[in-house]
Amino acid sequence: MSTKLKIAIVGSTGYGGVELMRLLQSHPYAEITSVISSSSAGSRVTEGYPHLQHIREEVLDDVDPQLIKQKADLVFLATPAGVASKLAPQYLAEGLKVIDLSGDFRLKDRAVYEQWYRKPAAEQADLDQAIFGLAEVYGSQVSDAAFISNPGCFPTATLLGIVPALQAGLIDHSTLIVDAKSGVSGAGRGASLGTHYSELNENFKAYKVNQHQHIPEIEMVLSQVAGEQVTVTFTTHLVPMTRGILATSYAKLKQDVTEQQLIELYEQYYAGRSFVRIRPQGQLPATKEVWGSNYCDIGFSVDPRTKRVTIISVIDNLVKGAAGQAIQNMNIMMGWDETLGLQFVPVYP
Amino acid sequence: MSTKLKIAIVGSTGYGGVELMRLLQSHPYAEITSVISSSSAGSRVTEGYPHLQHIREEVLDDVDPQLIKQKADLVFLATPAGVASKLAPQYLAEGLKVIDLSGDFRLKDRAVYEQWYRKPAAEQADLDQAIFGLAEVYGSQVSDAAFISNPGCFPTATLLGIVPALQAGLIDHSTLIVDAKSGVSGAGRGASLGTHYSELNENFKAYKVNQHQHIPEIEMVLSQVAGEQVTVTFTTHLVPMTRGILATSYAKLKQDVTEQQLIELYEQYYAGRSFVRIRPQGQLPATKEVWGSNYCDIGFSVDPRTKRVTIISVIDNLVKGAAGQAIQNMNIMMGWDETLGLQFVPVYP
Amino acid sequence: MSTKLKIAIVGSTGYGGVELMRLLQSHPYAEITSVISSSSAGSRVTEGYPHLQHIREEVLDDVDPQLIKQKADLVFLATPAGVASKLAPQYLAEGLKVIDLSGDFRLKDRAVYEQWYRKPAAEQADLDQAIFGLAEVYGSQVSDAAFISNPGCFPTATLLGIVPALQAGLIDHSTLIVDAKSGVSGAGRGASLGTHYSELNENFKAYKVNQHQHIPEIEMVLSQVAGEQVTVTFTTHLVPMTRGILATSYAKLKQDVTEQQLIELYEQYYAGRSFVRIRPQGQLPATKEVWGSNYCDIGFSVDPRTKRVTIISVIDNLVKGAAGQAIQNMNIMMGWDETLGLQFVPVYP
Amino acid sequence: MSTKLKIAIVGSTGYGGVELMRLLQSHPYAEITSVISSSSAGSRVTEGYPHLQHIREEVLDDVDPQLIKQKADLVFLATPAGVASKLAPQYLAEGLKVIDLSGDFRLKDRAVYEQWYRKPAAEQADLDQAIFGLAEVYGSQVSDAAFISNPGCFPTATLLGIVPALQAGLIDHSTLIVDAKSGVSGAGRGASLGTHYSELNENFKAYKVNQHQHIPEIEMVLSQVAGEQVTVTFTTHLVPMTRGILATSYAKLKQDVTEQQLIELYEQYYAGRSFVRIRPQGQLPATKEVWGSNYCDIGFSVDPRTKRVTIISVIDNLVKGAAGQAIQNMNIMMGWDETLGLQFVPVYP
Repeated sequence: MSTKLKIAIVGSTGYGGVELMRLLQSHPYAEITSVISSSSAGSRVTEGYPHLQHIREEVLDDVDPQLIKQKADLVFLATPAGVASKLAPQYLAEGLKVIDLSGDFRLKDRAVYEQWYRKPAAEQADLDQAIFGLAEVYGSQVSDAAFISNPGCFPTATLLGIVPALQAGLIDHSTLIVDAKSGVSGAGRGASLGTHYSELNENFKAYKVNQHQHIPEIEMVLSQVAGEQVTVTFTTHLVPMTRGILATSYAKLKQDVTEQQLIELYEQYYAGRSFVRIRPQGQLPATKEVWGSNYCDIGFSVDPRTKRVTIISVIDNLVKGAAGQAIQNMNIMMGWDETLGLQFVPVYP
Repeated sequence: MSTKLKIAIVGSTGYGGVELMRLLQSHPYAEITSVISSSSAGSRVTEGYPHLQHIREEVLDDVDPQLIKQKADLVFLATPAGVASKLAPQYLAEGLKVIDLSGDFRLKDRAVYEQWYRKPAAEQADLDQAIFGLAEVYGSQVSDAAFISNPGCFPTATLLGIVPALQAGLIDHSTLIVDAKSGVSGAGRGASLGTHYSELNENFKAYKVNQHQHIPEIEMVLSQVAGEQVTVTFTTHLVPMTRGILATSYAKLKQDVTEQQLIELYEQYYAGRSFVRIRPQGQLPATKEVWGSNYCDIGFSVDPRTKRVTIISVIDNLVKGAAGQAIQNMNIMMGWDETLGLQFVPVYP
Repeated sequence: MSTKLKIAIVGSTGYGGVELMRLLQSHPYAEITSVISSSSAGSRVTEGYPHLQHIREEVLDDVDPQLIKQKADLVFLATPAGVASKLAPQYLAEGLKVIDLSGDFRLKDRAVYEQWYRKPAAEQADLDQAIFGLAEVYGSQVSDAAFISNPGCFPTATLLGIVPALQAGLIDHSTLIVDAKSGVSGAGRGASLGTHYSELNENFKAYKVNQHQHIPEIEMVLSQVAGEQVTVTFTTHLVPMTRGILATSYAKLKQDVTEQQLIELYEQYYAGRSFVRIRPQGQLPATKEVWGSNYCDIGFSVDPRTKRVTIISVIDNLVKGAAGQAIQNMNIMMGWDETLGLQFVPVYP
Repeated sequence: MSTKLKIAIVGSTGYGGVELMRLLQSHPYAEITSVISSSSAGSRVTEGYPHLQHIREEVLDDVDPQLIKQKADLVFLATPAGVASKLAPQYLAEGLKVIDLSGDFRLKDRAVYEQWYRKPAAEQADLDQAIFGLAEVYGSQVSDAAFISNPGCFPTATLLGIVPALQAGLIDHSTLIVDAKSGVSGAGRGASLGTHYSELNENFKAYKVNQHQHIPEIEMVLSQVAGEQVTVTFTTHLVPMTRGILATSYAKLKQDVTEQQLIELYEQYYAGRSFVRIRPQGQLPATKEVWGSNYCDIGFSVDPRTKRVTIISVIDNLVKGAAGQAIQNMNIMMGWDETLGLQFVPVYP
């Protein structure tokens, strides 16, 4: 037990934090040694989350860096935007490894961050240090990192669906349109009219159209892959369900390509990666088929009538879109198999 | 048009108020002339409820009695507990008819109110004046009233299911247990963790067990019917749906009685009443079968093994449990057919 | 009563038929005189739909044209694809007016029908006779018709969202992509794994991608409006809810246009029409905001970064997407106000 | 690997079978060596369950006992009622250990089985051999067993909630009423109108009132505990959610007892048991708090007004109510810690 990696979770009263607890519970080489919340320090995790009775009964610590340093080797930051930019540098200064689940260190251009997030950006030096933890694309960088910026939920689903085709030069990126749909848990635990049951149940709507802060994150990665500036139309919708993201991506094909060829291309791109599953021809993934797991499933439809490809990619927003991917990054940072502690079968039905 | 009854709705930004607007829109003899909200006065109803675009575009008035008197003949109070006790007397003093949808005037014993609601009770004189508007039981009192206290949602479903059998002396009231289940809209529009989508979806729970403020209301009516003090065990549960209440009531039968006899008894009790439907033998009602309508549907199962009867009664909590019943009471007060403006077919599916 | 238009509904045990019953219940000039089902003739409507107790208790008739002619003046056909093509000509031959809610008479090209529906097409002469009942676009044709083919649910939402902009020459139709989402009731009442609760709840998925039979219907109308062949990419998704369609339509703008200009254009296009509501700038409609009503609500987002417009249009698939629109067409055929019997306020929440 | 216990699952295309696969995937001492389905033999599990891609790709075997004997040591039977009664004796005859998840071997009285299940009962000799696998009550019998009859989902939730109080003589069993509520997955994967999404969503109803086949199972155990015949009123309701059972049990207290005393009694009764969690005073469990896990959580409310206790007990019907409890029984049969492979944290939210 004493040789396990010691983990602190900052933001333990949010959905991201509590999902980290669920997943890390069975990790063979890591153990949670401190659960932290600035707002609820001193109370027990089980006060807000009775489902953790008998599992995690400890008292919540405060965010103090020196205290955390005494207790832990690695910190997960599951805090709202604008908090990690202040905390992460302090933890790094103490020699802690840091994995940030918020958006504070994803965008490397401070002006872009401030435009989309409407908050002060992190310091440039800190931004430069943070590795964007989309392991299936930037795996080699992740394995050397001490500080990871975990990708957003929408970018994860979107990018895993588009990157291989874009990198292979198959699609005209000027025609890229991503129509994304998310369950409600992505909005976090804060109560508001926008997450009020009676308003969302038996309802479907778009939100933050053309204004979602994940747009520049998607464009940043696609531009790196394409080697030129990529601009996308990206829409988010709210689905009356708790977990799951489905991204439907559309692009004009630059050449004739079959669904089978796309499948082979993607299988090759993701060879050696455990959490991307390419669906056989004629089969498209549903969000429930990855529910509770770290998988991203991808399927294709090529339309000869319009010369467009439709790519469907799905994730569980709290796992591959947040806590699961963060643990995957931890595994890679530590030189472990990326699947450690993450071999959950999707819960179906 | 000028001869229609003029209606003011206080609490127009809540679910009760907005449901009154929906139902009154097609009333042949009444028209809304003022929509009122103390918190949102000066803004438009459509700001909070875009679904009313082109239907109700007016600006919200404040709660001022004299202003309301100029605009209206009858006031519906769809306000939280503790508000109507202050407003209703002012409106009555202006000569307005008043129908209060809150719990403030239901319990005639001030001490009981204060025990269960944990708020100051209304004045005794005002309480004495308010008629309890369960028309199927107290219809003759309603028809003479100027001031109606509209029954609660749980009491409506529960009482309509139990009263005929109790009055007929068929059940031992000391064995009465009511297990009630409600959709989430009963909690109103105020956002809280208790109504947060991700917490309620795919979840079922009990709440306020043995502490719900509707318990004394149920007991008040049952005691009047029985002619002696009745005490019930009453439990409320929250169902992951927006509308609907189902009450499952259990009691020991004092004599052998068949389901068919119960059906006949209830048909007779509710003869001439339009909104109670007794199900044929072997059929039990589901909440969706009254959705959006003013019906209360009732079915029976008699168990010869245990000598108990199980009574299932369902309503739409926002219609028969609130706005619809209030309009039904208005119709009766005005000497009109109780179904005016309320002949909505349940929306199915 | 005897002067009311007499209505027969064929397919009365399906969701379309039962929704016709709900809506027609309060129509001032029409009354249902025969409810018809080939599969359930001789039984009562209430056997399958207990919510109609006390409302519609009659026995279901068979599909016999001569019988229907004796009872009715106008027939609604709410039958599956492949049935109306056989029945409608028989009813027309009897001198009955016919409004068909299925897809059998929408596509005028028999080969196209047979390609997408994989069933034998109706006779060409019958196809030529049927008016495509999208009243907001083809209103003048509807007012003279004796035989209406009611549009599909997806085409209704999609076309009302796109047609004004396309007709005004504002969008490049070669870039049109429609990402549509529907509640489950569109699949009808037939039980299957695809509509099994445990498979759909807390799940979101695409289906019939690039293969939906509504694609040629959308393209038929858009081509007529554009004056040249239009081909669209159209995707359907299943939302875990019962009612509602939201279509997100994307197109490249051919010129600079603001959201406010689009709003004005659409207001003008739909002037005099009662069931299309254009949302004010910055507001996008949600499906619940038209729930249970015949409205189609439309909102816009123009993205200067990508020069694309995103159009969001919503309907209740069983009302404006089926039964409500059919009654609207009946009203127009009969020379009545199109809103008769359809002035339902959306049910919210 | 070769030393692991080899497991065969009969009924692998149902929800019980697929949940066994999910849970056993991470069991340290057992491995699935054969997945079996009489109806789908020869096809792949992933054809019906795409979420198992990359996890379980094997071809389904047929139910042949000799084949299974070659491949496995222990068989889980996750088949409908009426199937296990025929298969289990054949597997036992081959020397296989058997855990039956159906109701075929729970009731020891053949006449009672045939009355409630309306099917031919298993042979008496086989019934006598099967141990009722409610480990928290019959743990010592389970540890010696070769043939386990796994309890039903409703009996599990109900009995764990009632047994300690009944055994301690605190409640008058003649007053026992159990009002149970279940998610839809308990109905299995077979499509029917009763599990059709549009019929269940936004709906709540009772079903099989006083007729559920779990009633005699509950009474059998309670009678053994009480030492005399116990008859209960038991009602089942369907909740619009996929997983979860909540049982609300009511009984008259035979003596004054506080909630804290009940908590202590239950803590003592379940001492040493890992999967029952007694909630602290004032807290009642919700189904989501055990979702995906093998826990049964129990809470109490004592009402001094009525001298009744209300006991709320919750489980995930597919885990503690089926597959999880079956694996727990396997662990105990094998002499292992009962939690092996079952230490799943509830998935929240």
